[in-house]
Parts: sequence; C-alpha cells; structure tokens
Amino acid sequence: LASDGSPSFVYLPGLAAGGGTIEIAGEEAHYLARVVRVRPGEHVGATDGAGTLATLEILEVGERVRARVLERVTSAAGAELELWCGAPEGDRADWLVEKLAELGVTRLQPVDASRGRWERFAAREKRWERLAVAALRQSRSAHRLQIAPPVTLAAALSAAGATAARWVCRPDGAAAPSVVRALPGRALAAVGPSSGFSSDELNALRDAGFVGVSLASARLRTETAALAVACVWAAAGSGHGPAGPEGGGGS
Amino acid sequence: LASDGSPSFVYLPGLAAGGGTIEIAGEEAHYLARVVRVRPGEHVGATDGAGTLATLEILEVGERVRARVLERVTSAAGAELELWCGAPEGDRADWLVEKLAELGVTRLQPVDASRGRWERFAAREKRWERLAVAALRQSRSAHRLQIAPPVTLAAALSAAGATAARWVCRPDGAAAPSVVRALPGRALAAVGPSSGFSSDELNALRDAGFVGVSLASARLRTETAALAVACVWAAAGSGHGPAGPEGGGGS
Repeated sequence: LASDGSPSFVYLPGLAAGGGTIEIAGEEAHYLARVVRVRPGEHVGATDGAGTLATLEILEVGERVRARVLERVTSAAGAELELWCGAPEGDRADWLVEKLAELGVTRLQPVDASRGRWERFAAREKRWERLAVAALRQSRSAHRLQIAPPVTLAAALSAAGATAARWVCRPDGAAAPSVVRALPGRALAAVGPSSGFSSDELNALRDAGFVGVSLASARLRTETAALAVACVWAAAGSGHGPAGPEGGGGS
Repeated sequence: LASDGSPSFVYLPGLAAGGGTIEIAGEEAHYLARVVRVRPGEHVGATDGAGTLATLEILEVGERVRARVLERVTSAAGAELELWCGAPEGDRADWLVEKLAELGVTRLQPVDASRGRWERFAAREKRWERLAVAALRQSRSAHRLQIAPPVTLAAALSAAGATAARWVCRPDGAAAPSVVRALPGRALAAVGPSSGFSSDELNALRDAGFVGVSLASARLRTETAALAVACVWAAAGSGHGPAGPEGGGGS
C-alpha cells in the first residue's frame, strides 16, 4: 500500500493487449517488488497511459512480477490540453514535466522560438520520460503526458488540427479563469520562452486564433506560466459542482 | 538590462526609510555590479518587499553601489493569500517557495500535521529566504513572500484573525475556479501534508469555516496542490477584463 493507504499503481504500456495473466518486468517490477513491496494476493492498480485502467491481483513476486487482470476498463479521453512551451532557463523543465504530468496535461510540445530554443531536449528526453511515468503512478491517471520533440512555432501552427480552444499566455490578456475551460476535445495553450515570444510570433498566434490569457499580476518565468495555465485548466475540470457542506472523512 | 530588455530590479529592505541617495551592499550590490552589470546613469527598479517600489539612478558601481532615488511609491496590499501548507516530501519545498513567491502569495505558513511535520525547516530556511528574494527580483513585485516558522494546525487555527475567505484543498471539494477569488483582504488556503490531513484535522478545518476546493481530477502531491491553489488565486486577480481583440506588440 502507498503511504496514504491506497493501492499501488503501475505503468504497463502493453496492458490493453495482455491476456488474463501478465508478466511485469523492468522498472515497474522493481517498483512493485522493492519500492512498495507487494505480496502475492495483494491488489494493485495499473494503466497503459493511453486510457486503460486495470486492477491486478499479484500472483508471484521476483525479478519479474506475475499478476492476474481482475478488471480492465477503458476511459475515453475527456478534456485534453496540449501545451506549446518555449524553452525555460536551465534545468527548470525537469519539474515542469513532472507537474504537467501530475495535472493531467495531454501533450507537451516544446516550441523553438526566435528568442529561445530547446537546446537540452536530446540530453533530457529520457529523464523527462521517467518523470512523466513517475507522475502517472502518483496521479493514478489513465492518461500519460506525451512529450513531443521540439518544433518551430511555424511548424507547430501548420501541424495544429481542429482544436476546442487556443490560448496564449500574455500579461495583457484576460484573467485566465474567465477564459480557460476544460472543454471537450483538445485545447492548445502557448507559452513563450524565458525572453518571451517576439512581436511577429505573437501576431502569428493571434492570427491563428490564440486568445490572450493573463495568469498573474507579476511577471512569471516560462515554466511558472506553463504550470499556471495547466493549473487553471485542471482546476476548471475538477470538483463536484458548487460548494456545499463538506463531509468529514479522508483527504 | 534584463534579457527581455526591462530594467533590472533589486530587493532593498531599507528602501522606505532611505533618503535621496542610498548605498547598496552585499548580495544586491553583487547582483547589480556582477550579474546584470549596471553602469552609472542607468535606471533600475527596487522594492523593500513590503509595498514600496522605487526607481533608482545608478551613481557609482563598485563593491558597494551608490544610487539616487528618483521616485518612490507605496502600493497598498491588495488581495492577499496566506497558504497553510503541510510538509511535502524531500526537497520539494524548494521550488514551491520559489513559485509561491513568483505568483505573489503573501505568506507561507508551514503547518505540522498529524501525518507530516516540517523536519527540514531549520536546515532550509535560509535557502528559502534567498529563493523568495530571487523570485521577487524576477516578478518585480512590491510584496515579498513571508515565510513563517512551522506551527501545528491547532496553533494556526487559534492564531488566525479575520479573513476574507478560507479554503481547504480536498479532492471532494468544488472546482477551485468556481470558489477561489482574489478578494480584498487576506484569504487562507490549507493544503495537507504528503499523506493528507487526518479526518480530525479536516473536521477542525470545516468547523473553522474552511470550504473544500478541488484542483484536479487526479491526485496531486502536496506541493502541486499548494501551487495549484496559488495559481488559480493569482490568475483570478490578474488580467484586464473580458477577452477582447489582442493588440500585437511585446510580451
């Protein structure tokens, strides 16, 4: 069991295709056997990060872990958020990836802008994949953050398909909670690099239908703005209707 | 000038009391002389972190920096947010402090809860003060994040004065954007430690008028929930009315 008493949760990319009994190897087996120390008979949750959630019964624990699939359900993607993000400074993308994954962002599209390029992408990609998987375990979600290789803003704009909404983070925009919604389908949110988008880039975004949203009275770093728009989006899609009297009980 | 072309900005706690010419020493002098390399005649911004903003003209640059105060204004505190935060895991409070400071949170009150205590506070306090100052420079704000020593939840509750609103982050709350507002006066937001508040603690918060707010469909880590409520609050207080056509121009 996790420290809060809930069952452990693992990422199994082949989960949807597997049969009634599956064999777990590699990092997820290590996590189950050594980190959370599951025992035969225990139940754990699992996802393939692409919409499938399952409950597993552990059969055998060793270098590989054998488990039986007790239940397997597929959850349709609801509101999706794709974040087009300029390069933050230094290593600040590390925790950005972790937090976007926890918040349920669908896809991170690093964008090379005129004032900043993702020089470190190749060197950090594997680490970010690991952080996205760790966040998936933590959040117990059915959908894993996808991390795309960097493209230019022009390339991102020409590849963008139909979208539910398009937002660009800029200080002169409208207050984000009045605009950012968790809409059915995929919304796009664009955030400039640490030195900001150029005027040409802002014009191109405006011409492509991106509406300005403001996230704070103060200037935010790139990764803070990216996180803030993801937070407002995630918060808009959460909760159980208007506030009523709260029950007691667990957190 | 900063990389985005805006003037440099420094934190001078004695700014409000100073006369027409001030002498800057220590870390802020180093920052001006060595990091942003100001020259005599250049203008820089400054704050005391307690509501005063000033424009300075640099007179002399050396181990100490002399400057003339060209303009000094005091901004009243607007909406304030005090965050009662349970202990996150490991070193995760480091970036939490930085991000809360950037977002304009007024005060971080670490809360020792039954399932988690701030064991590292004494060891990390100086680092967090530095991070709060660095974020103040970045955000160019007149108000600096205050970081209080940890207290128990019971002590925090009995010390709490009049508040504009009281929110507690919990998955069964109402969607945060429907509840969290940037209200005049001070709002309180409470977030549990990594293993959550206990039932007794949640009941005590409810009895003290804390309304449940939900921040995401997925489970969030302590520091992510703290950041998310701060983001929704900061975003609610930003912006320039409803979205209209965006002008071009700088970010």
